[in-house]
Amino acid sequence: MNTTHHAIVGCGVIGAAWAARTVLSGVDVVISDPSPEAESIFLAVLDNAVAAWDDLGLRTDQRGSWRVTDSIADAVAGASFIQESVPERPDLKAAVHREIEASCGTDVVIASSTSGIKPTDMQAALEHPERLVVGHPYNPVYLLPVVEVVGGNATTAEVIESAKTTYSRLGMKPVHVRVEIDAFIGDRLLEAVWREALWLVADGVATTEEIDDVITHGFGLRWAQMGLFETYRVAGGTGGFRHFISQFGPALEWPWTKLMDTPEFTPELVDRIVEQSDAQSGEYDVRELERIRDRNVAGFLKVLEANRWAAGTALADQREV
Amino acid sequence: MNTTHHAIVGCGVIGAAWAARTVLSGVDVVISDPSPEAESIFLAVLDNAVAAWDDLGLRTDQRGSWRVTDSIADAVAGASFIQESVPERPDLKAAVHREIEASCGTDVVIASSTSGIKPTDMQAALEHPERLVVGHPYNPVYLLPVVEVVGGNATTAEVIESAKTTYSRLGMKPVHVRVEIDAFIGDRLLEAVWREALWLVADGVATTEEIDDVITHGFGLRWAQMGLFETYRVAGGTGGFRHFISQFGPALEWPWTKLMDTPEFTPELVDRIVEQSDAQSGEYDVRELERIRDRNVAGFLKVLEANRWAAGTALADQREV
Repeated sequence: MNTTHHAIVGCGVIGAAWAARTVLSGVDVVISDPSPEAESIFLAVLDNAVAAWDDLGLRTDQRGSWRVTDSIADAVAGASFIQESVPERPDLKAAVHREIEASCGTDVVIASSTSGIKPTDMQAALEHPERLVVGHPYNPVYLLPVVEVVGGNATTAEVIESAKTTYSRLGMKPVHVRVEIDAFIGDRLLEAVWREALWLVADGVATTEEIDDVITHGFGLRWAQMGLFETYRVAGGTGGFRHFISQFGPALEWPWTKLMDTPEFTPELVDRIVEQSDAQSGEYDVRELERIRDRNVAGFLKVLEANRWAAGTALADQREV
Repeated sequence: MNTTHHAIVGCGVIGAAWAARTVLSGVDVVISDPSPEAESIFLAVLDNAVAAWDDLGLRTDQRGSWRVTDSIADAVAGASFIQESVPERPDLKAAVHREIEASCGTDVVIASSTSGIKPTDMQAALEHPERLVVGHPYNPVYLLPVVEVVGGNATTAEVIESAKTTYSRLGMKPVHVRVEIDAFIGDRLLEAVWREALWLVADGVATTEEIDDVITHGFGLRWAQMGLFETYRVAGGTGGFRHFISQFGPALEWPWTKLMDTPEFTPELVDRIVEQSDAQSGEYDVRELERIRDRNVAGFLKVLEANRWAAGTALADQREV
């Protein structure tokens, strides 16, 4: 018995998308959800996932089997991996985790899709807490590769590795969040943007559409292929990240945003960022990074044009000149 | 004399990219910069821009003329539009604006690429302040469509419209920032992310690479085609934005991020967001928006795969299974 099936506990938008990604990856799933609509939610999401994988040129004809049950015990019995995606209520999570544990093997990994609850807090409910991790995905789960893997105090290194291996087999990019914090990495960043964007709307500075236009026609096109730090590294030019910080770091202390309390640019922090940026991107020179960035962004714009969406219209207008 | 030439004052990374975009759009430019390296910077950026436009399938053989001078007076004499991109020092900007004004027509629009200085503050230096606007682009300027257009107290509506028309002719997406604030829209959002990301690094939670991985393999792929609000609208499902806020709004009051001071979710604010989101996206239902999103993201992933970069590796691994 190597890999049997994956149990998907909870079949809302996230659980259904986990199930679709898993089935399309050729792995059998058993989905549990108390709602009579669970199966139709799964089938609708699977339709979307198949269309997306077709667009990607990935095979969709070598699917795992699937069935939906209203019994958690039924779903998790004999499972080799369990992904829990029930609503974000700590009491509900605890009850579901206990129910899962009552019917699955003692060494089976239980991964929670929670976007905010610390794994250590969830482990208190378990008899075998060492096998509980957070595996936090981003929607659409069947398409976006990232999954944040977060262990609690009791989680073993083997369980972290096992979860990462499982996610890699689903074609994903697991990122191990080594320090347990609320909201992990991505939602920290998203919450900061969300809050600032709400101020812009609340103060009447911009509408939701104007804000979205600035994102999608600007830094969003960058971030689909290079992140915050790598983009700024390129902006620093041949002077690298240190130059970038010396040029733009001080602006952090200006009262631009509504959000106060900034970290101090100690020499240690500057060193750390420079080192990490070097380790990340040092194999390319700035010119190469620019070329890669440009090829990627150009490719995205062609995609948007073909889809007649957003930036594509500006491109089409350009052609008609 | 309809359109003569555009003057590009300041030929660093941003000024050179403005010049490249303008020349490739078939408009003549005269570039001024005191540095003897200005011409070689321009030519290097133009090379990148031509490669990017080739990738996009845009013509690059109907170029405007260009020349580089060390004299601002020479560059702006007879110009129909002036784009200033000198370093972000208020005193330098003021001196350059006065020098520009001494040699150009009284009704020629002077647009500053500043990312942080309010236009009203810059207008104090001018004899004809009504024609000064901010036209803040995002790098790479020859590829990213967005430009934030911001007027000061003295700027006339005609000047705003004229600047927007000029930018549209360069194939760009001008967004008029109607309320004058420091850092405008995009850099407000970017600064919030930047600050939170710095905390994550300073606290040892994540490395620059891990943070970038979460962005590029996660929400960055979303933001290249739908912004913050439209993405969340989709996440709200058939319940729309109101449902999304009721589900996730309260989390804003949890102490997740390092950044305090949150706006209160008054009924008025909720109404405003709901209304603006409806005005923005109400013509599509959620299923259509999901399909559009998926086609776009799938297209981006194919681009990244072809470029053997970032998310493309996960996709290639998937094929080899």
